[in-house]
Amino acid sequence: MVAYCYGQKRSTHRRNSLSLAAILVPGSDPRKLKSATQLDADCIVYDLEDSVPLARKGEARSMVFDALEVGASGNRRPEIAVRINAVHSGMAVDDLSIMLHSKYLQAMVIPKVNCASDVHFISRMIDSIAPADRQEHIRLIACIESAQGVMNLKEIATSDTRLSALLFAAEDYCADLGLIRTTHRREMLYARSALVTTACAYGLQSIDLASRDHSSVCMDYQDDEILRHECQEGREMGFTGKQAIHPRQIATIQEMFRPSEEDLIRAVKIVKGYVEHAQRGLGAFGLEGKVIDLPVVKWAERLIARARSAQMTIPNVSSSSSSSTGSSGGGGQQAEAAKTTESTTSRKT
Amino acid sequence: MVAYCYGQKRSTHRRNSLSLAAILVPGSDPRKLKSATQLDADCIVYDLEDSVPLARKGEARSMVFDALEVGASGNRRPEIAVRINAVHSGMAVDDLSIMLHSKYLQAMVIPKVNCASDVHFISRMIDSIAPADRQEHIRLIACIESAQGVMNLKEIATSDTRLSALLFAAEDYCADLGLIRTTHRREMLYARSALVTTACAYGLQSIDLASRDHSSVCMDYQDDEILRHECQEGREMGFTGKQAIHPRQIATIQEMFRPSEEDLIRAVKIVKGYVEHAQRGLGAFGLEGKVIDLPVVKWAERLIARARSAQMTIPNVSSSSSSSTGSSGGGGQQAEAAKTTESTTSRKT
Amino acid sequence: MVAYCYGQKRSTHRRNSLSLAAILVPGSDPRKLKSATQLDADCIVYDLEDSVPLARKGEARSMVFDALEVGASGNRRPEIAVRINAVHSGMAVDDLSIMLHSKYLQAMVIPKVNCASDVHFISRMIDSIAPADRQEHIRLIACIESAQGVMNLKEIATSDTRLSALLFAAEDYCADLGLIRTTHRREMLYARSALVTTACAYGLQSIDLASRDHSSVCMDYQDDEILRHECQEGREMGFTGKQAIHPRQIATIQEMFRPSEEDLIRAVKIVKGYVEHAQRGLGAFGLEGKVIDLPVVKWAERLIARARSAQMTIPNVSSSSSSSTGSSGGGGQQAEAAKTTESTTSRKT
Repeated sequence: MVAYCYGQKRSTHRRNSLSLAAILVPGSDPRKLKSATQLDADCIVYDLEDSVPLARKGEARSMVFDALEVGASGNRRPEIAVRINAVHSGMAVDDLSIMLHSKYLQAMVIPKVNCASDVHFISRMIDSIAPADRQEHIRLIACIESAQGVMNLKEIATSDTRLSALLFAAEDYCADLGLIRTTHRREMLYARSALVTTACAYGLQSIDLASRDHSSVCMDYQDDEILRHECQEGREMGFTGKQAIHPRQIATIQEMFRPSEEDLIRAVKIVKGYVEHAQRGLGAFGLEGKVIDLPVVKWAERLIARARSAQMTIPNVSSSSSSSTGSSGGGGQQAEAAKTTESTTSRKT
Repeated sequence: MVAYCYGQKRSTHRRNSLSLAAILVPGSDPRKLKSATQLDADCIVYDLEDSVPLARKGEARSMVFDALEVGASGNRRPEIAVRINAVHSGMAVDDLSIMLHSKYLQAMVIPKVNCASDVHFISRMIDSIAPADRQEHIRLIACIESAQGVMNLKEIATSDTRLSALLFAAEDYCADLGLIRTTHRREMLYARSALVTTACAYGLQSIDLASRDHSSVCMDYQDDEILRHECQEGREMGFTGKQAIHPRQIATIQEMFRPSEEDLIRAVKIVKGYVEHAQRGLGAFGLEGKVIDLPVVKWAERLIARARSAQMTIPNVSSSSSSSTGSSGGGGQQAEAAKTTESTTSRKT
Repeated sequence: MVAYCYGQKRSTHRRNSLSLAAILVPGSDPRKLKSATQLDADCIVYDLEDSVPLARKGEARSMVFDALEVGASGNRRPEIAVRINAVHSGMAVDDLSIMLHSKYLQAMVIPKVNCASDVHFISRMIDSIAPADRQEHIRLIACIESAQGVMNLKEIATSDTRLSALLFAAEDYCADLGLIRTTHRREMLYARSALVTTACAYGLQSIDLASRDHSSVCMDYQDDEILRHECQEGREMGFTGKQAIHPRQIATIQEMFRPSEEDLIRAVKIVKGYVEHAQRGLGAFGLEGKVIDLPVVKWAERLIARARSAQMTIPNVSSSSSSSTGSSGGGGQQAEAAKTTESTTSRKT
């Protein structure tokens, strides 16, 4: 096994495409396709898979392609993605043969990814079919929804430079393992933890499960409480975003996954300080009495990207690094506690 | 590392040998060996290992062999297995040299499996010693009871086609890690989750830990409540069966791990529909408004096998697939929730 | 991948250096460096990393080196370690160039270990710089504080024979994954479990997270309750020790991670019995009605080493093995429960 450690290169454009909230729109429903662009999600996924009955797959391909081409640019916000049928469903080639001719397709959601070769297949199809000026801009989101997918997380995560996110699909995962989905979600803790850890290790986003369906059509106060609780848990675990299955869930998800103002200010100071010091040839530097090294800088960059994606205003603060470096030095006993982490007070339960 | 993904072949006879409840019978106790065949377990394990004192190993081998040969067939229900001593105990060769001459041995439980070569060793012994007409019919159950075993789960699970189940042995696992067994079992969540996931990924059964010993000899109401709770947890996590350490536990374990009627009916519809459509050269198909693809078909097959093993009557229902395919199409917002999973209402806490 | 299973060799001197409680002392604070040797910890870590401001790194190197050389021996209790700056910080070579000339350095704490090559680097530096008579005696403690570190745990754990412990650094781990540290610590369960399992599988110690900082400077009753609860959890999970961030935490950590008298007596019996039987060419043997095999002997050896490190008196008991072997044989139904594990009654919640 290759020791996969330092020096992973990823194209930066994907850092601008963070998905706090991703929502599925059925590809065979013209009304919903039409209204989808009004949704305030970060990523809108036109679906060709499970929401489309078999007999209407062809029709859905046409409608989704038309919906894609309404776009005025290949870099829209919200981002427009397509979920194709699974690589081994016998329908993926037909899906790709049409979708990849789009001038505006931004992302491809690949369901039921079991191993690296599933991602390789899609990427080679992009190489073969997509317009030359789109090839670099189509990012891939791999859905993990099987025990095999979890076993092969490392191989999947490092399979292709186009890959930008791992998504946890709870319902199919539970079906594959024959496990019972509970309200405490302990039965999925291992798989979700493994996914988040792998995604983070290899620079990918991690999109958490969709909140269970609600008994009533209209979301009430109680539903929102459950959703908030799930968002909180997902954030605690390190997920960067979450699937929405109802437009009403989007605002809550965005609110919960958005960085806090306090963290954002700190992140900006860190990146500014880093740039200033790097120009003078220095690696680590001091900020407010703490040593800032590369992992912290990377944390700050990720947080700022997430804030940008959430349309937050990036504050213009100075790094004020040099004044504070050499001073106090703190007590060693507080050293462990003093390290940079997201401030958690506001969202703790 | 070989990407282990599609196309794993496993002999089907093992699908008929699912172990909801597996119970150990000490190999040095003639009375218990005699009465064992009356037990209504799915798998009865004659033990040569921990329940047999060192000085009586030879005697136990004779008694267990005799108990095996009382059998009238090599395909009995309940299945008869033998737990030998660990590969590195210095006693395994003696155990195997006798047991593998049996005409009726159905399964071998291998304790303390740390790596793939432990399984290879047993399998080569079967090749060398077992009667030619038995060689294909002896399935292996690997006990995971060490940190090394957990680290090497993938290698163990893919080590040999005879392997049919992974079993989690809690007591030895706790001893190996020096961890403390609690009533909330959080300390074993990682290992048990890893085992279930690996077993599912590579088509193996997963047998959960034995419920702790009870203070009193006769099981009372409270003991049964604890056992039910543990069974529920095991099912939630995806285990396919559980070890019994007392005959009184068998009925509860079987009841809890048996599929629900509702799931069984759905599974039969899916498999029937799949067979019909496959004859017409189609892969995925529609059933009650949802797309059924291969992972779901496999789920259904597994569930039916489990029902058969639990002596449940397989209902004769029609697939009624074509009528429902092209219709409604459902709302995309319900798509995630609508996927096939085990109905959980009846057993939820 | 090489099947890493039996036969791992490790030098025994490290078994005498178990760290129940490890405490950091800031390398730039002369007063604390001076008083550190009075601490009753098992491992005192002079810190060059996060507790030392950038501008004072050079000064700290001198002070720490001087503090090391005050030592009268290279095998002191408490053990004296140094935490250098991370391998990729640009400061590690300067740290090592000075520290490795010490005649008394006993252990090196390596922060932010992401992959095996981080450990290789330190070990090659020791080969190159350390005095010949110290080279075999410097043990390494690798800090796991990133998602990459968790992904590469197996490679890290098996990277070098000098490696003797894995340490979980919660704050940096949370920062790396962008996850939120909670009081229930569920978000770290996966990483901590993976670390403990890996450490145990490859014969390493595992040092748990530092208890969170306290609001007040003086620890009160409530703080101690939280610490006890965390210690209990760490022990339940199998950790062998814990980081202290305040001298007042040391006594509680040592008390909680120290083996019980009851376990110690049992362990001594097992090791004595094993030695006696091994001289007669026997592998497994019987003790108090149970079969004792190699994994249990290893458990006993580990426990005795831990007791030694905690300055406990090792009792002089006889193995009394032969008298009890052939007798009762116990009931098979109790077999699972009767296996050797740490007695847990006294510390159960």
